[in-house]
Amino acid sequence: MQIKPLFDKIVVKMAEVEETTKSGIILTGAAKEKPQVAEVLAVGPGGVVDGKEVKMEVKVGDKVIFNKYAGTEVKLDGEELIIVKQNDILGIVE
Amino acid sequence: MQIKPLFDKIVVKMAEVEETTKSGIILTGAAKEKPQVAEVLAVGPGGVVDGKEVKMEVKVGDKVIFNKYAGTEVKLDGEELIIVKQNDILGIVE
Amino acid sequence: MQIKPLFDKIVVKMAEVEETTKSGIILTGAAKEKPQVAEVLAVGPGGVVDGKEVKMEVKVGDKVIFNKYAGTEVKLDGEELIIVKQNDILGIVE
Amino acid sequence: MQIKPLFDKIVVKMAEVEETTKSGIILTGAAKEKPQVAEVLAVGPGGVVDGKEVKMEVKVGDKVIFNKYAGTEVKLDGEELIIVKQNDILGIVE
Amino acid sequence: MQIKPLFDKIVVKMAEVEETTKSGIILTGAAKEKPQVAEVLAVGPGGVVDGKEVKMEVKVGDKVIFNKYAGTEVKLDGEELIIVKQNDILGIVE
Amino acid sequence: MQIKPLFDKIVVKMAEVEETTKSGIILTGAAKEKPQVAEVLAVGPGGVVDGKEVKMEVKVGDKVIFNKYAGTEVKLDGEELIIVKQNDILGIVE
Amino acid sequence: MQIKPLFDKIVVKMAEVEETTKSGIILTGAAKEKPQVAEVLAVGPGGVVDGKEVKMEVKVGDKVIFNKYAGTEVKLDGEELIIVKQNDILGIVE
Repeated sequence: MQIKPLFDKIVVKMAEVEETTKSGIILTGAAKEKPQVAEVLAVGPGGVVDGKEVKMEVKVGDKVIFNKYAGTEVKLDGEELIIVKQNDILGIVE
Repeated sequence: MQIKPLFDKIVVKMAEVEETTKSGIILTGAAKEKPQVAEVLAVGPGGVVDGKEVKMEVKVGDKVIFNKYAGTEVKLDGEELIIVKQNDILGIVE
Repeated sequence: MQIKPLFDKIVVKMAEVEETTKSGIILTGAAKEKPQVAEVLAVGPGGVVDGKEVKMEVKVGDKVIFNKYAGTEVKLDGEELIIVKQNDILGIVE
Repeated sequence: MQIKPLFDKIVVKMAEVEETTKSGIILTGAAKEKPQVAEVLAVGPGGVVDGKEVKMEVKVGDKVIFNKYAGTEVKLDGEELIIVKQNDILGIVE
Repeated sequence: MQIKPLFDKIVVKMAEVEETTKSGIILTGAAKEKPQVAEVLAVGPGGVVDGKEVKMEVKVGDKVIFNKYAGTEVKLDGEELIIVKQNDILGIVE
Repeated sequence: MQIKPLFDKIVVKMAEVEETTKSGIILTGAAKEKPQVAEVLAVGPGGVVDGKEVKMEVKVGDKVIFNKYAGTEVKLDGEELIIVKQNDILGIVE
Repeated sequence: MQIKPLFDKIVVKMAEVEETTKSGIILTGAAKEKPQVAEVLAVGPGGVVDGKEVKMEVKVGDKVIFNKYAGTEVKLDGEELIIVKQNDILGIVE
């Protein structure tokens, strides 16, 4: 049982962050925008969104930083997932 | 007696969710956006919406996750239905 | 004495809804958006609205569901009418 | 002394409405939008407004229903006039 | 010492209005929009504003009615001037 | 040490205004929009801003009137500068 | 471990500013917009953002002034970084 995102939507799962490790990723965000690091589980096909062609630049397995603000939380088979638009993703952690 | 949605509108009916089952879908949403799982009952023909061509990617029978925020509830022949725009649909559950 | 709507405007009259009948249509709406079932009395010619070509898909006699939120009430010859834009119509009841 | 409206602007004068007559026009509007019946005194030439071509569909002498909300009241030679944009006009009363 | 307005900007000076004369112009406006009659002192060259071609239809010497709401007051050599965009001008008084 | 503005940005420095002189420039602005007279120190190259081609009409040395509202104050080498977009400039004082 | 920004996003690190030195950069900003001087660490590839082609004009190593308002703070390997859009950058300090 899985989610097939439409258009520019992306399904992600929060990465487990070790906040006390030096090499870990610790995020501090303004109240309005909670940044997030997450792993990409599914990527929509892109296409025409609001009359504008969107090309997907993120792929399954990418670790991404995004603004949680516009995302929607979903619990599927006991797993907590988040659906975001590609536009809400700021960068890929390598 | 049924609703024929216009343009990019979609008629859905809430799926009965078994919230206590492990394999069920449990949704948690922010106060502003109540996500929903629902079955698609009718799909508009698409066409030009706000001057932009919209192609319908959802079909009758799909189980969809959507933001209830912009939807409109309608009761027809005792059945509770919701009319949403395709743009409010985040993904299809398979 | 009648109203000829301009562009994408539509003149409707509220249908008389039998709220207690099983086969009747009972509407429940959020405070912000009061959905409505109404009969279409007059349809504008469409044309270029805000620089975008609008084609009319609703015709006189249709029973429509719409969001009353953006509509304007008018009383003409003792009849209560509402003028809405086609964009505010969600679907046609058949 | 008269006003020559620019672009899509229209000069109207409120029609005298007999509110108690059955065949009169009585308007009820939401607090936000005060609908109005008025006679058209002058019509702008149309043209490019906000980068979009506007074609005028209203002519001098038409009785129109409009939302007073965006209109501007002007008193010229003792007459109370209102300047509205064609987009604020809902329909023509015939 | 004078102001050369850019693009679609127009420099105007309030006309002296005889408010008690029958043939004078008396303006009544909503709190949000204070209409104004003024004489045009300088007109920008028009051109591309926000990616849209603007053609100037107002010329020096015109008496114009406008919404003061978006205008900016400037005092130059003791004279009180107002700079408005052509879009804020409703009509020309003739 | 100097600022090279990007795209449609312009670096200005407030002109010293003799407020008590008849030939001086005295500005009165609404609370929301503080107009400013300033000298242009640097002009961005223009280009495509929000998908729209912007051509720069202001040059170094111009005295300009602008709305301070959208500007950003910067102190560089002890000098107080302001960075504005060309769109915020109302006119050039000659 | 580093961030590869998407589209028009840019990763910057605050420059260490000597606020008491004459040749230092001291910033004063309105409450709504906190300007920032920072060094550019990574630049997205540009491309089509909201249907508009964006060309990157900032490069790694540039010292930039920007509005912190829309930026998102990220802590990576103990370093505090900020991700901004190129549109939020006002100028390059040389």
